[in-house]
Amino acid sequence: KKQYRIAVIPGDGIGKEVMPEGLRVLETAAKKHGVSLHFDHFDFSCWDYYEKHGQMMPDDWKEKIGKHDAIYFGAVGWPAKIPDHVSLWGSLIKFRREFDQYVNLRPVRLMPGVPSPLAGRKPGDIDFWVVRENTEGEYSSVGGRMFPETDREFVTQQTVMTRVGVDRILKFAFELAQSRPKKHLTSATKSNGISITMPYWDERVEAMAKKYPSVKWDKYHIDILTANFVLHPDWFDVVVGSNLFGDILSDLGPACTGTIGIAPSGNINPEGNFPSVFEPVHGSAPDIAGQGIANPIGAIWSGAMMLEHLGEKEAGKSIVDAIERTLAERTLRTRDLGGNADTTACGKAVAEMV
Amino acid sequence: KKQYRIAVIPGDGIGKEVMPEGLRVLETAAKKHGVSLHFDHFDFSCWDYYEKHGQMMPDDWKEKIGKHDAIYFGAVGWPAKIPDHVSLWGSLIKFRREFDQYVNLRPVRLMPGVPSPLAGRKPGDIDFWVVRENTEGEYSSVGGRMFPETDREFVTQQTVMTRVGVDRILKFAFELAQSRPKKHLTSATKSNGISITMPYWDERVEAMAKKYPSVKWDKYHIDILTANFVLHPDWFDVVVGSNLFGDILSDLGPACTGTIGIAPSGNINPEGNFPSVFEPVHGSAPDIAGQGIANPIGAIWSGAMMLEHLGEKEAGKSIVDAIERTLAERTLRTRDLGGNADTTACGKAVAEMV
Ligand SMILES: CC(C)[C@H](C(=O)O)[C@@H](O)C(=O)O
Ligand SMILES: CC(C)[C@H](C(=O)O)[C@@H](O)C(=O)O
Repeated sequence: KKQYRIAVIPGDGIGKEVMPEGLRVLETAAKKHGVSLHFDHFDFSCWDYYEKHGQMMPDDWKEKIGKHDAIYFGAVGWPAKIPDHVSLWGSLIKFRREFDQYVNLRPVRLMPGVPSPLAGRKPGDIDFWVVRENTEGEYSSVGGRMFPETDREFVTQQTVMTRVGVDRILKFAFELAQSRPKKHLTSATKSNGISITMPYWDERVEAMAKKYPSVKWDKYHIDILTANFVLHPDWFDVVVGSNLFGDILSDLGPACTGTIGIAPSGNINPEGNFPSVFEPVHGSAPDIAGQGIANPIGAIWSGAMMLEHLGEKEAGKSIVDAIERTLAERTLRTRDLGGNADTTACGKAVAEMV
Repeated sequence: KKQYRIAVIPGDGIGKEVMPEGLRVLETAAKKHGVSLHFDHFDFSCWDYYEKHGQMMPDDWKEKIGKHDAIYFGAVGWPAKIPDHVSLWGSLIKFRREFDQYVNLRPVRLMPGVPSPLAGRKPGDIDFWVVRENTEGEYSSVGGRMFPETDREFVTQQTVMTRVGVDRILKFAFELAQSRPKKHLTSATKSNGISITMPYWDERVEAMAKKYPSVKWDKYHIDILTANFVLHPDWFDVVVGSNLFGDILSDLGPACTGTIGIAPSGNINPEGNFPSVFEPVHGSAPDIAGQGIANPIGAIWSGAMMLEHLGEKEAGKSIVDAIERTLAERTLRTRDLGGNADTTACGKAVAEMV
């Protein structure tokens, strides 16, 4: 019977507080469903490590965590102490690139007990996935500055879309759509304004769609698409976008379901050539770190996504169900959701519901 | 006493239906406030013209409309008949570039009578401006494709930010913020992911902020900023963004206030070297064109913005007030807002309220 080896990296701030709850729930669900998990803990990819070593990760980070079945990650970054381009690009974005995690996957689901910021929407009304390209597109490092400090000064940065990069994310998104009851895919574009890369994206979507005749698909320009997230969130099933558009939609989506505080995410290498990273969408939240009040649901839900990715669908689903039952009880929710539970109490509640 | 010369271009689809109402209201307000307006009507920049002439505009379009005090525009585009890159880039975007309309300005305001999609928000709760850079940034035409039809195929497109281009839009935004009671400016960035152009944008914001010490300013990454439009729309006063970010925010903002159907916009050359264009945010809406049911408020409100731009603040304000009073009456609203008025009835109602 297979034992899964998980690398655990709590990282910075509330990452350190929510991860123990995530692990608690994972252990409970694993025991219940006869899944064998082995956890290796790592102290890098955080400010403390950087302070001691002058870099975010050891030189041999790839050997250390590159053979694990998955990476369970808390949060990284502490802008007051270390600039984002050092902390994020020295860990999170490095993982995405060097472990070729070309899919960023996030559920958008209105949960019980979470007040909807959208008038009249109830749990069940909003339930879709955002699939984001996670390695290229607008996040290239190609570009530069000319004529510095003069009136002619300008900067440029290239958006780069490769056929390989675009086709593989579209394939993933169409497969996901095909596996769902509604079989509906929406593509985010802006080909009426961004006149070279976005028409190419559209072209590849059209080509890929031919291979999935059972999937109904449509496309919206990103401006009206964000508007439709607010006005018609029930229209969506699977939404696919470039690195930037996916980034925007996968924060806006969770906001439309009440809070990004409970949203999970997966940075996935579908072929399994490298480990995938599962992490809550929220960051390290320096403002509330150390108080034990952070909401652990994002981390716990990310653990569920990790189990599903590993093929342990039932164990994963049992956690998502437990989250729903926990959120439905006001007293078991953390303060950000109008409850009075602290991080540990909320985590224990989910574990008990599993 | 100055007479303003206005070029009127109804364009396509419902543009032709809403513009007469916009003109009706403008004429009424002008008479009432002793403003003298002269209208010249043009039939180009639409599908009908393209069908006859094979181009969107006559060769001498600049001579024809380049000396007017402003351009009052309906809508352009009819994707089933003519691709966007021909219709939009052949008129709207041409105006922006060749008339150096580097400011795209749109109000985000929750109006009476328009049901808010955001739970519990009332008129008065949401009232801010989106200032968008309108000539450069992500809408460059620089880029291309290599290795077509092979596995190595890729496309690139550059984002271009010039010192002149960035500084002038920031100056406009800071001035606007300074003129408002809250004196608050929010900048849209993504410097943690888009690592060359966006840090440059941030750098120029910081430099410009020094010249406006009375303005409080902050910045958000575009992902969390879109989330905050939904969760905390009351946080904003003036929001400034690049061409793409401003485009997104100025559709999302109106959606958060219930409908993009009534939103107005200005494409402004602040120095007055060229005419500015005022147009409703909605497009030509082929699906409802010809039925006389389009909502004329976006066009009417754009007329009010035009008057304010021309320096006729009182006349402009009288129109905005009349819009508010009209929208407050269900029977005077068009169907998209739950009323039963047709386009003309709604336009007449506003004119009577002026
Ligand atoms: C039609 C399109 C090119 C345009 C834009 O993106 O600029 C529109 O969305 C707008 O906001 O005026
Ligand atoms: C921290 C930042 C670079 C990152 C991104 O934009 O990719 C974050 O917003 C995310 O979505 O994971």
